[in-house]
Amino acid sequence: MKRSLIWLCAAMLPLCAAAQTPGLGKRATRHAVERLMMDNPPRLGLDTAATPEQLAEWRDSMAAAMRTLMRHPAAEAAAPVFESKVSRPGYTVERWLTYPLPGYEVPVLVLVPDRPHPTRASVICMPGFGQTKELLAGEPYSCYDLSAQPDSVTPRGAMARHFAEMGLVAVAVDSPCCGELSDNGYFDYLASSRFLLETGWSYLGLSSWQAKVALDMLRNRADIDRNRIIAAGFSLGTEPMMALGLMEPDIRAFVYNDFMCRTRERALVLNAARDNGARPYPNTDEHLIPCFLTTFDFPDIVAAFAPRPVIMTEGGMDRDFDMIRAAYAKAGAPDGATCIHYAKYADPADRQRLDTVPSGLDMDGFFRLANVDPPNHYFKAEHVLPWLRDLLESWE
Amino acid sequence: MKRSLIWLCAAMLPLCAAAQTPGLGKRATRHAVERLMMDNPPRLGLDTAATPEQLAEWRDSMAAAMRTLMRHPAAEAAAPVFESKVSRPGYTVERWLTYPLPGYEVPVLVLVPDRPHPTRASVICMPGFGQTKELLAGEPYSCYDLSAQPDSVTPRGAMARHFAEMGLVAVAVDSPCCGELSDNGYFDYLASSRFLLETGWSYLGLSSWQAKVALDMLRNRADIDRNRIIAAGFSLGTEPMMALGLMEPDIRAFVYNDFMCRTRERALVLNAARDNGARPYPNTDEHLIPCFLTTFDFPDIVAAFAPRPVIMTEGGMDRDFDMIRAAYAKAGAPDGATCIHYAKYADPADRQRLDTVPSGLDMDGFFRLANVDPPNHYFKAEHVLPWLRDLLESWE
Repeated sequence: MKRSLIWLCAAMLPLCAAAQTPGLGKRATRHAVERLMMDNPPRLGLDTAATPEQLAEWRDSMAAAMRTLMRHPAAEAAAPVFESKVSRPGYTVERWLTYPLPGYEVPVLVLVPDRPHPTRASVICMPGFGQTKELLAGEPYSCYDLSAQPDSVTPRGAMARHFAEMGLVAVAVDSPCCGELSDNGYFDYLASSRFLLETGWSYLGLSSWQAKVALDMLRNRADIDRNRIIAAGFSLGTEPMMALGLMEPDIRAFVYNDFMCRTRERALVLNAARDNGARPYPNTDEHLIPCFLTTFDFPDIVAAFAPRPVIMTEGGMDRDFDMIRAAYAKAGAPDGATCIHYAKYADPADRQRLDTVPSGLDMDGFFRLANVDPPNHYFKAEHVLPWLRDLLESWE
Repeated sequence: MKRSLIWLCAAMLPLCAAAQTPGLGKRATRHAVERLMMDNPPRLGLDTAATPEQLAEWRDSMAAAMRTLMRHPAAEAAAPVFESKVSRPGYTVERWLTYPLPGYEVPVLVLVPDRPHPTRASVICMPGFGQTKELLAGEPYSCYDLSAQPDSVTPRGAMARHFAEMGLVAVAVDSPCCGELSDNGYFDYLASSRFLLETGWSYLGLSSWQAKVALDMLRNRADIDRNRIIAAGFSLGTEPMMALGLMEPDIRAFVYNDFMCRTRERALVLNAARDNGARPYPNTDEHLIPCFLTTFDFPDIVAAFAPRPVIMTEGGMDRDFDMIRAAYAKAGAPDGATCIHYAKYADPADRQRLDTVPSGLDMDGFFRLANVDPPNHYFKAEHVLPWLRDLLESWE
C-alpha cells in the first residue's frame, strides 16, 4: 500500500527536528547516519487516510514483513516433553521442555487452573528485561525445580499466576539468556545478540521463535480453546508478543504492558550529549533487528492487531493512542483498543500532547514528554484483570 | 563453488573446541547461538583443494558477495571539490571535499610528491581505530586546516607521508566518526554504527564507501597511473581496504597492517568468563556486518586478492599465512604474499603453530596463541617501505 503524501510529511516532522541535533557539526558522520534514518521512514507505517479495505491489505503486508524480519526456522521444533508438576493453591504448575532449535532445550511453565474458566481461554506470557518465567508464575525468582514454596500472596508482577487465578491456562516463557537460559546466572543478552546478528538473525527473532514454540504447545492442549489464546508481554516481553501478534492471526487478544513508543523517533531525539560528549543509542543490541525500523514501528504494529482486543497499560503519547484507536475504529472495533495512561498522567491536563518530539533530549526529558513514569513501570494487574474479566464475559 | 568436504571438516574443528565453552550450562542460550555460528561456517571459505580455475571462479563469487554485503549506494557521489593546499618539504598536501552521501561532506587529504615516482604509482590509506587522516599525513592529529607545522621527522604512523616521500601520490581518508567526522571530537562509532545497522547498512559499508569515493577521486587524477593504485590500511583501516580489494579488481597491491585473524573463530574461543560472569564478544558494533562471517573471513578475503601483491606486517597464525600463500601459488604468484611476523615471533621456534585455537581464552591468552604482540601494534614502515621499493622496481 502506498503511503499518502500527507502522512509521509507528518512522519517526517519529528525527523526534521531530530536533524537539528544540538551542537552536532555538519560534517559529523552521525549527522549523515541520522539523515539516512530520516530518509528511510517505515515503508509500512500506518496510513491514517487508508480505507478499511486498504487497511485489511496493509495488515497482510505487515504480517508478511514481520515473518521476513523474524526469520523463524523452517524446520518444526521437536515435540515438547512433560517434565514435572507441583500443586499450588487453586492451580497446578507444570514444567515442560521445549526444543526451539536442535540441542536447545527451553523449559516452560504451564499454570493449569483447578477451575478452568468456561471460555477455556488461555494466555502466553513473556517477562521483562532480566526477569524469569518463575517470576511470572509467582514462584521464587530462580527456583527452577519449583521446590520452594511461593508467597501466599500473588506478587504484583506474577502475570501468569494472576491469569491462572482467573481460570486461564497460562504459559510462562523465558526470554533468551534469562533465568535457566542464562550463562550461570549472568544475563548474557549482549554477546548472544551479537552472535545472532552475525548469522543474520536477532535476539527478537529467537525470542519470538521461543514464544512461538511454546504457543504451539499451548495450542495443542486439549484443555484450551485454541481460538481464545491471549498474548501478554511485559516490557522487553512486549516485543516477541508484538511479533507473534502480526504473524499469528489466531491470537485473539493482547496485553501490552509498556508505554507505547515510536522507537525510531526516540532514537533520533534522544541525542543530548553527556559529559564525555557521547550521545548513546537509547537501547542495546537485544533490540536491534536490521531493517525493522525502516519497515514499521511499535504503534503501527499494534494498530495492525485491529480488530483484536488489546490493552495498553502504561500510556505514552496521545498522538499514538489516537492513531491506534482510529485503526481499530476502521476495523469495526471502536472499543477494541484500551489505552491507559500512567496514574501520574491519567488526567489529560497533566499530559504533554505533542505531535512531534523535539530533539536534544536525555532519557528523563524524553520520558517527561512521552508521559512516562519510569518508577511505576510494573505489571498493571489493576487494569489488566478487569479488562480481561470483561473480555471473557464477552466471549461467554 | 562447492566447498570440499575435507575443508569443511577442517573448518569445523576449531568450532567443536569452541562448543565446549568452559562451564557453560547446556541450556544457556549462548550455547545455542554459538552452535548456530558453528553450523553456518563461511559459505565462501577458501577450498584449499580447489584448482586454479575453480579459484578464479571463487574470486568472482567473493567479489560479488562483498558487493552485496557492503551495499554501496547506487547513486554516484557528487564530484569532489578542491579546497586548499599547503607546501611541505618534498610534497604538497591538498585538501579535497568529497560527498559520499547527499549532504555528507568528507574532507580528504592528498599528498602530492614534488618528484613523482616514474611509475606514477599512488596509494589510498585508511587509519586505525580513532586515528585521523591528519595523523596518516604526518600533520598534527586534529589540525584540520593544516595551519600548524608538522614534525620535521616523519612520525612512525604517518603512512601517507612515508609513501609521498617515496614519490607516490597518497590519499588519506578518515574512518567514519573520526577526526573531522567525529561528534565534536567524540569518536561516535557505536551510536553511528547502530543507526547504520538499523537501516540495514553497516559501519564497514559506509567506511568502504567513503574510501571508494576517495579512490574514484584518485583514479581521475591526471598525475597517476590508475592501474598502479595501492590500498593500505592500518588496524581498523584494513577492513575497508579488504572490502575494496575484493570489489575493485584494478587495485594493484595491498598493505595489510594488522595481524591476520579468523575473526569468527576468535569470537567462538574468546569465552573465558570475567569476574562478573560476562563472556563479552571480542569487538563492538563497528565490526558487525550481518552475514559477513557466514560468507567469508579475513584470511579468505586476502587469499582472494591473489595474484595481486600483498604485504601482511603483523603476523598471526602460520596456518593462515600458509593458506594465503598456497592460494597465491595457485594463482601463479608464489611470492605475491609477503608474510611478516611480529619481531617477538619472527623466529618460528617462538611461535605457536596451531591448526585450531582452543576454547576458554581471554584476550591475552588468545593473542599469545595467535602470535600477536599488542604493545607493538603500529604501522610497520620498516617492512612496508622496502617491500614497496621492490614492488615499484618491478613495475618500472
